[in-house]
Amino acid sequence: MTDSLAPGATIGILGGGQLGRMLSVAAARLGFRTHIFEPGANPPAGQVCDTVTTAPYEDKAALLAFADAVDLITFEFENIPTTALDILESHRPIHPNREALRVSQDRLVEKEFLQSLGLATAPFAAVDSLANLNNAIARIGTPAILKTRRFGYDGKGQVRIKTPGEAETAYASMADAPSILEGFVDFSREISVIGARNSDGAVSCFDPGENIHNDGILHTTTVPAQISNALRTDAVLLAGRILNALDYVGVLGVELFVTDSGLIVNEIAPRVHNSGHWTQNGCVIDQFEQHIRAVSGWPLGDGQRHSDVEMLNLIGEDITMVPALAKERNAAIHLYGKADVKPGRKMGHVNRLLSKP
Amino acid sequence: MTDSLAPGATIGILGGGQLGRMLSVAAARLGFRTHIFEPGANPPAGQVCDTVTTAPYEDKAALLAFADAVDLITFEFENIPTTALDILESHRPIHPNREALRVSQDRLVEKEFLQSLGLATAPFAAVDSLANLNNAIARIGTPAILKTRRFGYDGKGQVRIKTPGEAETAYASMADAPSILEGFVDFSREISVIGARNSDGAVSCFDPGENIHNDGILHTTTVPAQISNALRTDAVLLAGRILNALDYVGVLGVELFVTDSGLIVNEIAPRVHNSGHWTQNGCVIDQFEQHIRAVSGWPLGDGQRHSDVEMLNLIGEDITMVPALAKERNAAIHLYGKADVKPGRKMGHVNRLLSKP
Repeated sequence: MTDSLAPGATIGILGGGQLGRMLSVAAARLGFRTHIFEPGANPPAGQVCDTVTTAPYEDKAALLAFADAVDLITFEFENIPTTALDILESHRPIHPNREALRVSQDRLVEKEFLQSLGLATAPFAAVDSLANLNNAIARIGTPAILKTRRFGYDGKGQVRIKTPGEAETAYASMADAPSILEGFVDFSREISVIGARNSDGAVSCFDPGENIHNDGILHTTTVPAQISNALRTDAVLLAGRILNALDYVGVLGVELFVTDSGLIVNEIAPRVHNSGHWTQNGCVIDQFEQHIRAVSGWPLGDGQRHSDVEMLNLIGEDITMVPALAKERNAAIHLYGKADVKPGRKMGHVNRLLSKP
Repeated sequence: MTDSLAPGATIGILGGGQLGRMLSVAAARLGFRTHIFEPGANPPAGQVCDTVTTAPYEDKAALLAFADAVDLITFEFENIPTTALDILESHRPIHPNREALRVSQDRLVEKEFLQSLGLATAPFAAVDSLANLNNAIARIGTPAILKTRRFGYDGKGQVRIKTPGEAETAYASMADAPSILEGFVDFSREISVIGARNSDGAVSCFDPGENIHNDGILHTTTVPAQISNALRTDAVLLAGRILNALDYVGVLGVELFVTDSGLIVNEIAPRVHNSGHWTQNGCVIDQFEQHIRAVSGWPLGDGQRHSDVEMLNLIGEDITMVPALAKERNAAIHLYGKADVKPGRKMGHVNRLLSKP
């Protein structure tokens, strides 16, 4: 911990949503102050941090003042404008690094990066025109999914193409955004690995969780995933390969499809990840503290879990389940302090402890 | 949960030290905002709460504005001035109630209350003069401890009397504060029970922890305590009796001596308690969330633990142990964000997970 951040230092966090909120609490637990930079008013993280800057990412003066006020910078989301990163990076260290952001901000670049590591992905093709798309469909087949290369999350910015005849409508819905066609993957399960790497190059992964999505949004993560030990090992090794290739510092989420021919990487997220929320009640050191430890140059937790957990997201009106959940034994409720309930909005989650591992 | 506080409401907390800090984080986890009232500048809780009021307890306008800004009031320490409570209570509900504060603010009243419940205490006598003290020593014997009736904590405001000849010096050190002489108790262990009661009258206790004090300050709490099941049951029933007698709402700490003739109540604290910090890493719902649930009218957690824990306080220069502790497996570090290290100052604690129960 020679070059590590000492308690009392301030960690700047770009983004004030629920991930920033839970990062802020984890940082405080290690004695750090946190400073949130967030364009939107009343961010959830603002309720549990030391300082909030409310300003757009185009406000150079606000970015500089933020950088001056903190000791290092991290983030809760990958779609930070490049110009803002340029300004911030010239003043303070940012973890994870720019390369991780560059790769994960663009689905095409990400897939090419993964293939360069010898990892399997869905078949894919860049799409910049309807002609492109028709060629891609001819090669990859249907069903397939057309996605914007950038700024997609929780199933947004993507459209399913069931037959070649749907190509024109699908292409129009992208509104000329650079896109990628991804072929259909016949998978039996979706799992994810939450991995971490610190500046010493130490790597640590949590046990893979098994994910169920509804309408493109994560519904539950259950740990352990019902997979063989061999696949479990493959998943963890694969995450480590990605972390090392990116010279990554922080926590990274890797979503994987389990298929008859092994694991296929769906996508990576250079940040703490919804499918890692179970660690809050399953591990001594959760993904949020793991991330803070990594970016602060602290030793990493070893990822061991003390309990099996099912994490259930509370989306939109699911928040009305809270009174019933509060009566459950072994259920830890985590709410995000969001005032307005909207369909599809992540309002909180609950971690249900299952039997011990 | 008909009359329960809904997520989004604001909980006012009197006191911004580490207990207020950890209460604030627990409240946020359930979707509440927190507002800290604290006379001192830069309170530890201020780094993780929504709003801080910095004002003395004599500032009536500040107290009223605070009361108006919150939905209910709780506290992290029992020595809140009565005048402040009078003002606050006329505007907002305060949990735990005034009776619990009245009893626990005065060692003499507390001992009389405990005896009225048929619970064993150390022999004691009120001391208002040197003559009083000499009579008390003649009756109770030495060694004994002379303590101020009010405002003592962590071994402050007390002096040990080894022989009757030390009475005069001891009495002088009390500087005419109303005092109490407590007889020596020959105990084999110190344990404590963290109990909770909500407004429905539901009572829930965590498993008793075994405490080791150094120089009057808690050093470690280990769960489970090495006591018989019968004593464990006695301890929990006794805590329940106190909670019910006080019509208590919130978390209460009960310190007990284990003697050859059973349990003797040392003292009670009408708040979350240092000897309950282990619950953060041993239970799904820790003492801080349990307190927030109780005062908010939510169902209580059942107190079950998923892991055995040793809690070690980091006092003063113990904070230098953090780099080594950070390398330990199964050690959860909790720091309080205090800038200045002082001898005897509680800087943080670490919860070490032991084998599973």
